[in-house]
Amino acid sequence: MNRTDSAETAADLAAEAALLEIAEELGLSDLLDRAEPFTLRQATDLAAVPAPGAAAYLGALVSAGLVEQAAQDGPYTPVADLADRRYRAGYLSWALNANRPYIDHAALFLRDPETAGEKYARDGRKVAVSSRWIGSRGFYPGVIQEITSGAPRRVVDLGAGAGGLLIRLLRDLPDSTGLALDLSAAACDEALRAARRAGVADRLDVVHRSIESIAEDPAPVRGADVVHAGFVLHDVVARPDVLDAVLRACRESLAEGGRMIVTDAVPYVPDPRERAFSALFSYLHASSMEVNLPPTEVWHEAFRRAGFTDVSSTPLRMPGSRVFQAAG
Amino acid sequence: MNRTDSAETAADLAAEAALLEIAEELGLSDLLDRAEPFTLRQATDLAAVPAPGAAAYLGALVSAGLVEQAAQDGPYTPVADLADRRYRAGYLSWALNANRPYIDHAALFLRDPETAGEKYARDGRKVAVSSRWIGSRGFYPGVIQEITSGAPRRVVDLGAGAGGLLIRLLRDLPDSTGLALDLSAAACDEALRAARRAGVADRLDVVHRSIESIAEDPAPVRGADVVHAGFVLHDVVARPDVLDAVLRACRESLAEGGRMIVTDAVPYVPDPRERAFSALFSYLHASSMEVNLPPTEVWHEAFRRAGFTDVSSTPLRMPGSRVFQAAG
Repeated sequence: MNRTDSAETAADLAAEAALLEIAEELGLSDLLDRAEPFTLRQATDLAAVPAPGAAAYLGALVSAGLVEQAAQDGPYTPVADLADRRYRAGYLSWALNANRPYIDHAALFLRDPETAGEKYARDGRKVAVSSRWIGSRGFYPGVIQEITSGAPRRVVDLGAGAGGLLIRLLRDLPDSTGLALDLSAAACDEALRAARRAGVADRLDVVHRSIESIAEDPAPVRGADVVHAGFVLHDVVARPDVLDAVLRACRESLAEGGRMIVTDAVPYVPDPRERAFSALFSYLHASSMEVNLPPTEVWHEAFRRAGFTDVSSTPLRMPGSRVFQAAG
Repeated sequence: MNRTDSAETAADLAAEAALLEIAEELGLSDLLDRAEPFTLRQATDLAAVPAPGAAAYLGALVSAGLVEQAAQDGPYTPVADLADRRYRAGYLSWALNANRPYIDHAALFLRDPETAGEKYARDGRKVAVSSRWIGSRGFYPGVIQEITSGAPRRVVDLGAGAGGLLIRLLRDLPDSTGLALDLSAAACDEALRAARRAGVADRLDVVHRSIESIAEDPAPVRGADVVHAGFVLHDVVARPDVLDAVLRACRESLAEGGRMIVTDAVPYVPDPRERAFSALFSYLHASSMEVNLPPTEVWHEAFRRAGFTDVSSTPLRMPGSRVFQAAG
């Protein structure tokens, strides 16, 4: 019986997500992602757990079909489609793990969102991990294709987090430079370290600032061929004057022929492929994060008000997500 | 695009599970299960949240396709297959919500299971709710069919919890009586209340005792046509002498022609339909609950040692679950 024909797809997906979350907790995700054989000893050392425990866990992965083991006591090899399975697990982890406080206190978030928001915050690490898993197939490939299609020499990422997108881009574009801007000092430090590890530190500037500050001082975006902002500008949309000022500053700073690329989610998409996840994403942002996602038209109008031309948007694979493009 | 053809099945299932968990947290599960139209006012009253918040949540359910609304401001009707969707969501909730402490502290459970077990317990309500959702399609129908096939006049449920299975049986079998035995006083109280609400209290005895105590004093099982035990005897298997004594006491107490029926999970089933969930279920029980699930043969041998005949087992829909039957 193949996976999609099985009546127990939900049980399969739930089990895989839980087992992959346990791998993450044990520090074994990198080992699984490498798609190369590894030994019990490697897993035991990485997880820092007794060998019988690591063997029991790896045995469960073999039994579940996430890892293969040709001979007893032999090495373990992640299955060929592990990356697809991690992508699928990302939706479960984001919905049911990263958003746990919003689910468990759903009533309080509707009665008194301010108090609820102060008392019950999400775990930033769980949000980052599950978003990366979704992004691996859900939006990074589409965004990277969009950005690299113009062979940009300088790329700026607003709200770059730990710099993952830029580092990957700079590896693909060996003559380009980048700038990662983020409000979190910890994320900026991590971006610097990751850039050094990836050997692109000499081509990446890291700037610890808010996106809003671009309106006052657009130095970070100056001369960019592409300015990208992924899932961050929706936080600014509630203040249209700030959004307009940021977009205008970006446009005026772009190099000749430069483009602005925004990856974000639009609210309550009715398409059958997108409706369920889009509804959850939209509801949680509105009820628990004080973010009313702007619809496609609102983004298009904002770009045009800021003087952009050739504004377009394309669906990405993650239900509800869109990549907006605008010429400077 | 139909659901199973969609590449985003994981996103759909994750969103539905999170939205149904929010309904549970808001106290709206009963309203959704009735499969009848309900009003915003009913939802607002039940959830005790402001009407705009309730309307936003119900709007998300409509947008996600879990509830229908023919006219704006009109009543809401749960979709016809809501029970199927709740069943599927059960796997996600059990794996990623009920077992959360075992996932988040997976390394500690392998390093020092005793300390981990003392510090990080599961939330009993989350376990009960997600197990009921799985059971609704995953094992209750098969177990009920098995029990009622012999038209039993007296049914005893060992580890009956809040009595859900027995109350449903007594409704279907108006001339039968039952006995619910459980170690939890709170569960026994809830079973009494539920039996009164269902109008079967005059036919249900509730006994607050351990299953192990049956070996010393088999009064609760005396004269039963069926003694059932669902997902509880695996806790006793680590003490084979106790298991044997309990099974023997049951056999000796059965009415003429009586049967013992055990619903439980067997470990690490290799069948493609079952392997992933069975692996998670088996691993979590072994690593975090000190339960090494006995394989089918071990159950069969235990029944035979206790003098049972005609021992058989049948897979139920929940991956890894089996219903064992033995004649007294």
